[in-house]
This record gives sequence, C-alpha cells and structure tokens, in this order.
Amino acid sequence: MSTAKPIILTGDRTTGPLHLGHYVGSLRTRVELQHKAQQFLLLADTQAMTDNVGHHQKVTDNVVEVALDYLAAGIDPRLSTIFVQSQVPELAELTQYLLNLVTVSRLERNPTIKEEIRLRDFERDIPAGFLMYPVSQAADITAFKASMVPVGDDQLPMIEQTNELVRKFNSTVGDQILVECEAVLSAVTRLPGIDGKAKMSKSLNNAIHLGASADDIKKAVNRMYTDPNHLRVDDPGQVEGNVVFAFLDAFEPDATVLDDLKAHYRRGGLADSILKRRLNEHLQALLEPVRQRREQFAADRGEVMNILRQGTEKARLVASQTVYEVKAALGLNYFN
Amino acid sequence: MSTAKPIILTGDRTTGPLHLGHYVGSLRTRVELQHKAQQFLLLADTQAMTDNVGHHQKVTDNVVEVALDYLAAGIDPRLSTIFVQSQVPELAELTQYLLNLVTVSRLERNPTIKEEIRLRDFERDIPAGFLMYPVSQAADITAFKASMVPVGDDQLPMIEQTNELVRKFNSTVGDQILVECEAVLSAVTRLPGIDGKAKMSKSLNNAIHLGASADDIKKAVNRMYTDPNHLRVDDPGQVEGNVVFAFLDAFEPDATVLDDLKAHYRRGGLADSILKRRLNEHLQALLEPVRQRREQFAADRGEVMNILRQGTEKARLVASQTVYEVKAALGLNYFN
Repeated sequence: MSTAKPIILTGDRTTGPLHLGHYVGSLRTRVELQHKAQQFLLLADTQAMTDNVGHHQKVTDNVVEVALDYLAAGIDPRLSTIFVQSQVPELAELTQYLLNLVTVSRLERNPTIKEEIRLRDFERDIPAGFLMYPVSQAADITAFKASMVPVGDDQLPMIEQTNELVRKFNSTVGDQILVECEAVLSAVTRLPGIDGKAKMSKSLNNAIHLGASADDIKKAVNRMYTDPNHLRVDDPGQVEGNVVFAFLDAFEPDATVLDDLKAHYRRGGLADSILKRRLNEHLQALLEPVRQRREQFAADRGEVMNILRQGTEKARLVASQTVYEVKAALGLNYFN
Repeated sequence: MSTAKPIILTGDRTTGPLHLGHYVGSLRTRVELQHKAQQFLLLADTQAMTDNVGHHQKVTDNVVEVALDYLAAGIDPRLSTIFVQSQVPELAELTQYLLNLVTVSRLERNPTIKEEIRLRDFERDIPAGFLMYPVSQAADITAFKASMVPVGDDQLPMIEQTNELVRKFNSTVGDQILVECEAVLSAVTRLPGIDGKAKMSKSLNNAIHLGASADDIKKAVNRMYTDPNHLRVDDPGQVEGNVVFAFLDAFEPDATVLDDLKAHYRRGGLADSILKRRLNEHLQALLEPVRQRREQFAADRGEVMNILRQGTEKARLVASQTVYEVKAALGLNYFN
C-alpha cells in the first residue's frame, strides 16, 4: 500500500448488471485510475437495500454480476480492491456516528435525495434508511480516507454533504481524523438510452449491457434513434439529440473523423446506416474482449468469490483502522 | 444460558450517575428480575451521543459511573450481563437494516420522540441520529431476542415501534427471525424531585444519588417540599402532591403504617419532621449498603472494567448470532 498514491472510493449499487452508460460514466475512468491511485470499489448492496425492501434477492444476486462487469471491463483485482459493503460492518458503525452530525432537515434539502425521492414516488413515505443513505455514503468515503471520488455531476451534492460531515466531525473532536474528498467528474458524464431517453437504464430496456452478445449490440445500434426529420440521405441532419452521435461522441477515437462526420451529416448526404455501421464496429471492438473476460470469470465463480473475499478483508482492515481512530477521538475506547 | 428463562434487555443512557428515581423506576426491579430472567443491561453510550455532540466526554466518563451504580444497587454480574453499547458494533449493523423498514414520517409521529424533541428545543434542527434512535433501540432489544423490556409508561411507544419493526422484518424475509417483546411496567414508575418538580433529575439539582453520603441524604430529606398550607402541626395536611408522601409511597415497607400516617396527616396533628425522620431512616437503611458497595467497586476500577469487558464479550456473541441470522435471511451471506 503506497502512501504516495491518492485514495479513491467509488462503486455501484448492486441492482442489475452494468451497461455502456456505466462504462462511459465511470468504469472507463476507473480502469485508468487503478494505475495511478489506490482504488476501492464498493459493491453497494447495503445501500441498494434502502429502496429495495422485499426485493433483497435482486440486490444480493447482482453482487456477483456487478463484480463480473468490473473484472470484464478491465478492473484488475491486484490493482483495485473490490469489496462488498454489507460485509464491512465498520461502515454501519461509522454511519451511526456521522448521523449525529447532520440534521433531518439538512438531509431533506439534499438535491440528489430530493430528486431521487421524486423519481421513486415516495412522497411522505420515505424509508428512513433511504433518507440517511448520503450519510452512509459519507461513511463509505471517509472510512477509506478517500481524497478522490469519481461521480456524475448529479452526485456533487453528496460530496458536499460528505465534506460537511468531515469538517463537523473533525471540529467536534478537535482533531483531523477524517479527510475531505474531491469529486472527479468524467469527461462524458452520461450516455442516452438507445431510444433517445435521457438515461440509459436496465428498467427502461434501452441499455446495452457490458456482456451483450455481438448480435445484441448490432440490433441495439440498429434500433437507435437518429434525427426523425432526416428522411432521405440527402436531407440535412441534426447532430444534437441524435443518439448515434451521442454514442460516437463517447466511442469514436478519432476526433477529426468525428468532426467530419458531423459536418457531413449536417449538410446532408450521410446515411444513418453508415454512421451506425461505424458505431457498431467501435462497440464490437470494445465489447468483444469485455464479453470474453466476463464469460471466463463467470465460468469460475469460485475465483470471483475469492477476489471479493480478499478485497473485503483488505477493505475491512482499512475501515476498521479509521473506525478505531473515530471511536478513540470520541473517547469510545474503554477497553484499549 | 438457559433457554427456559425469559430474556430481558434494559439499560440507561450514560449521561450522569443514577439516583433514587432510577432505583424506584427500574433498578429495584432489575435486581429482582436477574434471578428469574436472563438479563442484559445496556450502558447506552452510543444512544447518549445522539443528543450530546460536543459533550462526548460526559457520555464516556459516565459509563463507569452507571456501571458502579448498577453494581452498587445489587446487580450481580454473574446473573446479569452488563455491556457497553458502542463496543457491540453488531447493534449499528442491525440498526442499518431496520432503518429501511420504517418511514421518516412514522418516526416523526412517535410520541416519545415528539416529546423529547420538544424538551430539547430542537425544532427543525433534529440530529438525524436522534430521530433514528428508536430504531437503534429496537436493534438493541431485538439483537438479544428480548421478550421483556422493563420501561416507564412514557416509553410504551418505543416498544410498539420495536414490535412493528419485528413484524415488518419477519414478513419481509418470510421467516420468524426477530422476536416481539412486551413492556414490563414498574409498580411505582416515577419519583418526584425533592423540590416537588415532576421528575427527579441531576440537571435540576433535585435528585438523591445512589452514592449520596448519609449527610447528603439527611439534607435532601430536610429540603423536601411538603404541604405549603400545613403551617402548624395541628392543621390538616395534604398527602397528594406532598413530596415526602410520594417518597414514603415508594420506600415505606409497611402498608398499614403508611395508611395510618396518611390518615393522621390529613386530619392534623402529624408534624412534617416526624415523617421526614421516618423517611430518612428508610433511605439511610436502603442506601448505606449501596454506598458501601459503590465505594468498594470504585476502589477497584480494573475489576469494574473486567466486568464490563466480559459482559460486552458475551453480549457480542449473542448479538452477532442474531445479526448473522438477519443477514442470512436477507441473502447477505456470500462468504459463508
């Protein structure tokens, strides 16, 4: 464990397999960052439980699925620590202490939570665990003394809340125990669904999964919405809001080619089918090795569980050291 | 561990030494119950933290003080398990799972919490940890599968909330994992302060502590409010609202004598000083051995810490078994 490398905490709720939206939004960055940072990757089953009461099997079944997606995308367990949230009870303990440092009304004002409550139609029936989850997230981050947290821009209020808690805790105990963190925003933060909806999502059935077959990928690209007014090839086409271009923005490696394609499309004469063929080639090239790695790991579930067990043990060591310091700072170390 | 004996969970926030109000309200019952039940006594430092941010030393310093009061009052560590809440992290873990089963508005409707929020002038600035503490209390009770919880009548909504959570959890996982509990009300639930205020409390400076000296006890009894209209011995006196009679109700062992004293006082001719002398004798007889035991234990702090360490180890064993079952029922047992 090198102290020179920054510490990163990031992860995913385990509610379904990951898709290209995750790849662009976070996974791609994590695969790069694991060489430069000490990276902890959280399989957030406990957090997923907060709004999946009665659907806990969905949550627990997807722990391995998300782990497979990580490994398939190129996360190397020798470089990154993949661990299971529910198996690090120190996180629950730290959450409990941080909960005393934030008011209920402050949590209710959190813009991310407000939006998520709206999306889930909770209205007044917000599960207490759900309202509290930003505090649990702050515990996840601070337990590892992470200084960098890769997030989408919709998650910035969470980082702000975390840092408020860090400052409040440190000032309460009069010592710099917890560490403030910084949000690392991805260059391309969000991929639309293939149907043009703002968000790619499993539940909307508009996603391309990381384990998608060659045929699935091709079909999905063919289904992608383009410019509905681009009826004939010669018509001028619109690039903005065009799903295929949104994908090319994320996956076309040659910026000059991309600019040329956009200009050509705008003035007319470039067929959707040509764009789609190009995008399909990029996605096939990207996802073929991912799919192969996923199948290899999926065939050796014992090895995946080993990776998770070892990662979780390492995570517990780090988190328990922080909780030890937190409790000592509060005087809760009677037996030491 | 006998399975025939009922399991009891009870305890105190560690915010100050205990007084006669605690003795009458709970301690006296616990000393009896330890012979008939498997009794877990919680030193609730984590719970005390929820409304003592910035005053954590008060909370941690009083862990030993309350333990001394328990031992002094006659709690036998061979019969009862005295343990420290913060040192049983399984309780935080269980709390986290129970938090998903209750809504924020349900917690806000809890009459005990409403009253406590009012008393603390929190208004909208309720610490999240404080609003959640009934859930943490439910975790304390259910972690030990306690079937009996000795409480004051003001705490009945807490028991109701606990049983709601038990039913919700069991129905969610489709198994009878957690156990419902029953409130055990003390015969005399509350002792007034020596100044006649409704509640005896350290902060109101109207309490008689369990460790009070003979002189302190005598002075406190002499300070006690009686009937302000009972100016001359021959005047008829009022028994209701008379602090000395409230204490005699709790400490006069002879019911016939007590009835005679009340009748005599009502018709006139019974001096306050006579009542106070009798009460003083009862309190001296009660508290002398308590004070002596307290001094003995206080002189051997290492032994007290040993008792707490052993109690906490035993409590962890029981609580971790329950948390194991809870997590297994939710499918959170990937590595077992």
